[in-house]
Amino acid sequence: MRDFSNDHSALAINSATVKSLNLQQLVDGCARAGITAIAPWRDLVQAVGIPQAGKMIRDAGLKVTSLVRAGLFTASDAGGRRAAIDDNRRALDEAVGIGAANLLLIAGGLPPGSKDIVGARHQVRDGLATLLPYARQANMPLAMEPLHPMTAADRGCVTTLGNANDLCDELGEGLGVAIDVYHVWWDPTLPREIARAGKRILGYHVCDWLVPTTDLLLDRGMMGDGIIDLKSIRKMVEDAGYNAPVDVEIFSAGNWWKRDPDEVLRICAERFRNVV
Amino acid sequence: MRDFSNDHSALAINSATVKSLNLQQLVDGCARAGITAIAPWRDLVQAVGIPQAGKMIRDAGLKVTSLVRAGLFTASDAGGRRAAIDDNRRALDEAVGIGAANLLLIAGGLPPGSKDIVGARHQVRDGLATLLPYARQANMPLAMEPLHPMTAADRGCVTTLGNANDLCDELGEGLGVAIDVYHVWWDPTLPREIARAGKRILGYHVCDWLVPTTDLLLDRGMMGDGIIDLKSIRKMVEDAGYNAPVDVEIFSAGNWWKRDPDEVLRICAERFRNVV
Repeated sequence: MRDFSNDHSALAINSATVKSLNLQQLVDGCARAGITAIAPWRDLVQAVGIPQAGKMIRDAGLKVTSLVRAGLFTASDAGGRRAAIDDNRRALDEAVGIGAANLLLIAGGLPPGSKDIVGARHQVRDGLATLLPYARQANMPLAMEPLHPMTAADRGCVTTLGNANDLCDELGEGLGVAIDVYHVWWDPTLPREIARAGKRILGYHVCDWLVPTTDLLLDRGMMGDGIIDLKSIRKMVEDAGYNAPVDVEIFSAGNWWKRDPDEVLRICAERFRNVV
Repeated sequence: MRDFSNDHSALAINSATVKSLNLQQLVDGCARAGITAIAPWRDLVQAVGIPQAGKMIRDAGLKVTSLVRAGLFTASDAGGRRAAIDDNRRALDEAVGIGAANLLLIAGGLPPGSKDIVGARHQVRDGLATLLPYARQANMPLAMEPLHPMTAADRGCVTTLGNANDLCDELGEGLGVAIDVYHVWWDPTLPREIARAGKRILGYHVCDWLVPTTDLLLDRGMMGDGIIDLKSIRKMVEDAGYNAPVDVEIFSAGNWWKRDPDEVLRICAERFRNVV
């Protein structure tokens, strides 16, 4: 297991952690905090245009772990599903344009009015199958992130790492998984499924689960402030072969989003060294 | 699959659905609504005393599906775990006293300050193993209810039906499962795990998952108001051999708990016939 105690060079900041910043501000803030990798959301890079975003990132010498996020394959009709594929192709082009190591995907929830989660998962599988040839040609891996079951209805019908691993088994090369502790920490099959994912682990994300949690989406905690056994999970992920950066992704409307971004980045780095 | 469309004789009301009622009021309300089974919480029966509660229920001709709830095996130290076992023994006596078909259990969450969910699950297993001889002697089945992963930290570290089935395999006779759609609907392994549970299914609970959901505990929906495919899950449960009553359990601080309990019971019965 890597020793982060004196070194946060493996820390990557997901831009949603410091949501108020634009891309230039994020790049500058990371430079001040000695942070060398980022995972930007698409709206940030789209706002300046892909070539300019790529230049900004390269000039700063930053790594990009993932472009965040595409996927969202589910829709009420074939037209909606085609539109999702088109948007995913654009996201792949953007990921290539900024030199991301992979494109992060979430599944999508139930289409409006639907109660068919099995059907929604079939839509995800079919969407991935349609997208994969384009992704392989672009040499851009797809990192499927299983989401916490509490988001299954409106955001992520792929709810477990086992579910994502099954998709990888079925669809093959070019598809991997991103493991976010927030989404998977509760899963009794986690050790087995992390080992099974092995070299298909393309991303590892940290934050913390607060007790109590007051919102299903926007109440994530800073690493160390909650009850997730971060070191145990990282050990499993690294034992499975993962040695790329670790993304910090904290959606926190009530706390971290309200603070000074420089302070947030400083605390992320500090906690990264001490508790991740 | 049973036809409920003209008949709600298989409907049981969990007392938390009409939380403002005491036991006598619940018994009377069920009589007015033509509801013939209940699943009372312990505080209701304790408030009148077990002999009197049993008499009240027998005089009204009501079935009791489960006494709700015991379990909560996890604690920071051995004294806390012993106290939990003692309380579970009292709950078993109460369940026998009111003629319940089983005692409903939830696992308990992480002990205060702990990040060890694997250890918490071991505490649950050990607690069940300690309790089972007493339960068998009392001829009172224990129904372990896996809870939604969003409650894993503070309430239910047994988070999946697979997890509960594993406990049943390990601990044997006297232990079964209760399946609440709210807790398990999102699980990709649900069909397989329901079939695996088979005759060990001791209870089946319905309500609905609302979109959006605004609270992790107290925002459950009335059947039909959310996105759970109730009929598909009931079919799986009945195909596995279940033919006992179906409990309605709705925690709803913002809506159903504010309404007139007679109206709530009437709507439960109506939805039971139409959408369950």
